[in-house]
Amino acid sequence: MSLVSRDPILLTPGPLTTSLSTKTAMLRDWGSWDASFNAITAEVRKQLLDIANAHENHVCVPMQGSGTFSIEAAVNTLLPRDGHMLVLINGAYGKRMAKLVQMMGRKVSVFETPEDIPTTAADVERLLSGDRSITHVGLIHCETSTGILNPLAEIADIVARHRRSLIIDAMSSFGALAVDAAKVPFDALIAASGKCIEGPPGMGFVLVRKSVLEKAAGNSTSLSLDLYDQWSYMEKTTQWRFTPPTHIVAAFHQALMQFVAEGGQPARLARYQKNYEALMTGMDELGLKSFLDPKIQAPIIVTIHAPDSGNYEFKRFYNQVRDKGFVLYPGKLTQAETFRVGCIGAIGADEMRQAVHAIADALREMGITTKGTREKRLASELAVNTA
Amino acid sequence: MSLVSRDPILLTPGPLTTSLSTKTAMLRDWGSWDASFNAITAEVRKQLLDIANAHENHVCVPMQGSGTFSIEAAVNTLLPRDGHMLVLINGAYGKRMAKLVQMMGRKVSVFETPEDIPTTAADVERLLSGDRSITHVGLIHCETSTGILNPLAEIADIVARHRRSLIIDAMSSFGALAVDAAKVPFDALIAASGKCIEGPPGMGFVLVRKSVLEKAAGNSTSLSLDLYDQWSYMEKTTQWRFTPPTHIVAAFHQALMQFVAEGGQPARLARYQKNYEALMTGMDELGLKSFLDPKIQAPIIVTIHAPDSGNYEFKRFYNQVRDKGFVLYPGKLTQAETFRVGCIGAIGADEMRQAVHAIADALREMGITTKGTREKRLASELAVNTA
Ligand SMILES: Cc1ncc(COP(=O)(O)O)c(C=O)c1O
Ligand SMILES: Cc1ncc(COP(=O)(O)O)c(C=O)c1O
Repeated sequence: MSLVSRDPILLTPGPLTTSLSTKTAMLRDWGSWDASFNAITAEVRKQLLDIANAHENHVCVPMQGSGTFSIEAAVNTLLPRDGHMLVLINGAYGKRMAKLVQMMGRKVSVFETPEDIPTTAADVERLLSGDRSITHVGLIHCETSTGILNPLAEIADIVARHRRSLIIDAMSSFGALAVDAAKVPFDALIAASGKCIEGPPGMGFVLVRKSVLEKAAGNSTSLSLDLYDQWSYMEKTTQWRFTPPTHIVAAFHQALMQFVAEGGQPARLARYQKNYEALMTGMDELGLKSFLDPKIQAPIIVTIHAPDSGNYEFKRFYNQVRDKGFVLYPGKLTQAETFRVGCIGAIGADEMRQAVHAIADALREMGITTKGTREKRLASELAVNTA
Repeated sequence: MSLVSRDPILLTPGPLTTSLSTKTAMLRDWGSWDASFNAITAEVRKQLLDIANAHENHVCVPMQGSGTFSIEAAVNTLLPRDGHMLVLINGAYGKRMAKLVQMMGRKVSVFETPEDIPTTAADVERLLSGDRSITHVGLIHCETSTGILNPLAEIADIVARHRRSLIIDAMSSFGALAVDAAKVPFDALIAASGKCIEGPPGMGFVLVRKSVLEKAAGNSTSLSLDLYDQWSYMEKTTQWRFTPPTHIVAAFHQALMQFVAEGGQPARLARYQKNYEALMTGMDELGLKSFLDPKIQAPIIVTIHAPDSGNYEFKRFYNQVRDKGFVLYPGKLTQAETFRVGCIGAIGADEMRQAVHAIADALREMGITTKGTREKRLASELAVNTA
C-alpha cells in the first residue's frame, strides 16, 4: 500500500466521493424528535420531489437502510398479496428485484435479455398483452451491472396504457438522468442517498403515487419495510417511525443543496457526461474497449474489457490503481473479464483524466502493453531516428 | 429558539451525543469493496463479540437500517415458518416485537405485565411449561419505554432449561449492562450503533449462535433482512451484501475504540451510573419523582413524572430546556404525564448536573413551583430575616 494516505477518489457506483461540505454536515448530533431535524427531513422530501417534478401526484417516503431495502419496501407495500409482478431483467439488479418478490411469496414472472440488450417497449407491449394477470412491472432504469440504459419513457407509456403499475429502480440514475413525473407515468421510483445526489450511503427513498399508497395499508408483511406505515407516521408526526440515520439525513440534505446550487439535474448530467467522455477518450488511447454500444450506455458507470494480456489480474490492477489514488470497481459479468469505472460522485473531468493516467501507469507496471504505450514507443523511436 | 447555536446535548436514548472523534471518523469516503474498509467491518464484528464474551459459540452479523430492522432480521431468519414465538411485554418495544412477528405471518403469543412490572423467571417457567408449542422467546432487556430492567440472566436460564430459543432485544443496554454469553445462554442478541457504544445511528447487529444460524437458510421471507444470507456472504467475501453505511461503520469503529480505551463495559456502566445518580439527586431536589421503583430501574433512561402544575406543558418545557442546551425525550406512557431523560451518550455527571439546572430554570420560567424553588425561597427569606 502507498505510504501516503491521502483519501483515494472513488470511481465506484456508490459509495462514491462526496464533497467535504457534505461530510462536515455529519459533525453534529441531532435529536430525532427535534423540530430542527424534522425540518431537514421535510426539506429533503420536498427537494427529491422537485427533482422528478412529482409534487402533483406523488409523495416522497424516505427509508432507513441501503437502496435494496427501499426497493423491497416499495414492492412489499404496493404489490398486493394476490398481485403478479413482471420484472424486466438485463443484469444483477433486475435479478435481485425478481428474487425479493419471490422471497416474499408473491407471484413473479421475469423477462430476461442479454446484459448488453435493453428491454424494448415492444417487448413490454407483447408481454402485457399476452398476460392479463400481470398487475405490476418492475424496471431497472440504469442497470449498474453493466451501465446499460433501459428506455424508461417508452416502457412507462406502454405500462400506463395497459393500466398496470410501474415500479422503477432508478438507484444509479436518479438526479443525473431526467425523469419528469408529469410526462413519465410511474407508481413508484426508488433511489438512495449515496448515488447521483452525492450523499453518504445509509438511506433510500421512494417517490410514490399518493393515490396508490393510500390504498396500500395492510399489504406489507414486514414491519420495518412497511412503506405505508412509514409514510402515514411521518405525515402525522413529521418524524421518522424508527430511529433515523440522523447524520446521513443531514449530509444528504447538504448534498441536495449543492445539487441545486450546481444547477440541478441538467448540470449534474452535463458534469457526468464530461467525466464519461474524458474516460472514454483515455480508454480509447489505451486501446481498451467498453463492453456496451455507446448508444445504450448511460454516463453513470462504464464496463470496460480487461486488456487481453496474460499479465492482467484484476486484484493486482485494482491495488496498483488504488495506490495511485483511485478506487475502481470489479466487473459483474460472468462471460467476459471486465472492470468498471464510475463516472459519478463529486469529481470532474480533471480527476477522470488523472484516473486514466493512473490506469495507464498501472498497466505499464504490470508489463501490459497498451495501444498508448506502443504508440508512445513508436513516437519516441521516430524522434530518435529523426534526430 | 436561542440565538446561540451551540450543539445541544442529547439526553435521549439514541441518537445520542457522540464524541467529536467519533464524528470526525465520518470525514472520509470509503469504497465498500476496498480491503481497508472490510478490515474495519471485521474489527467491528470482533469487538462486538468481545463485549459479550461470545466468541466461542456466536458470530456477529451487522445489518443496515435502524435497530428494528435487525430485530426483524433476527426473528425472520431464526424463527422457522412453523415456529411459535412468545414475546414478553412491558412496554412499546415488546409490543413492537410481537407486531413484527405477527406481520410476517408466524405464530406469536404474548405475555404482558404493566409497564412498571418486570417479567419474572417464574412467569416464564409457567408459560413454557404450559405451552410446549412455543419454540422461541422474545425478551426486551431494558424496555426503553420506561427504562425498566427485565431479569435477563434468570429468564435466559429458564428458557435454556426448557430448550427453547431466546431472542434478546438488548438495544438500549448492550455495552452498558454486562452480558456474558458463557453464562447467559441466548441464540440471538440485538443492538445498534447509536446506543451505549455511542456511535451514530444507521446500523444494527445481531450476536447469533453459529450452530443455529447455520441451519436458518431459507427461513427468511425478506431478502434485505435475511440474516443468514448477510452472514454467509460476509464470511465468503469479507464484504457487506448490499451497500454498507460506510461512514457510520467507520464512526462506529472509532466509538468502539473509545469504548475499549475507557475500560469497556464496566467503565461505561460506571459513568452512566454516575450520570443517573446526578440526575436523580437533582430531580429529588426539585421534588420530581421517577416513575419506576429504583430496584428495577436501569441507569439508561429514566421516566420522570411531570410536575403537578396547571402551568406544565411538555412541548413548552422541552423547548425551554432545549434552548438552554439540552434535548429531553417525551414520555411514552398513556396513563401518566411523564418525560424521559437519557443517561447515555458521550457525557458525564457535570453535563447531567447542568441539565438539572436547565430543567430547574425552565420550570421556574414556566411559573412552576418545585420543591427546590420553595426551599431556596425559604432559605433566602431565612437569610434576610437573620441579617
Ligand atoms: C440499479 C441498482 N439497484 C439497486 C442497487 C442496490 O442498492 P444497495 O446496494 O444500496 O442496496 C444498486 C446499487 O448499486 C443499483 O445500482
Ligand atoms: C429496547 C429497544 N428496542 C428497539 C428499539 C428500536 O430501535 P430503532 O429505533 O433503531 O429501530 C429501541 C430504540 O430506542 C429500543 O430502545
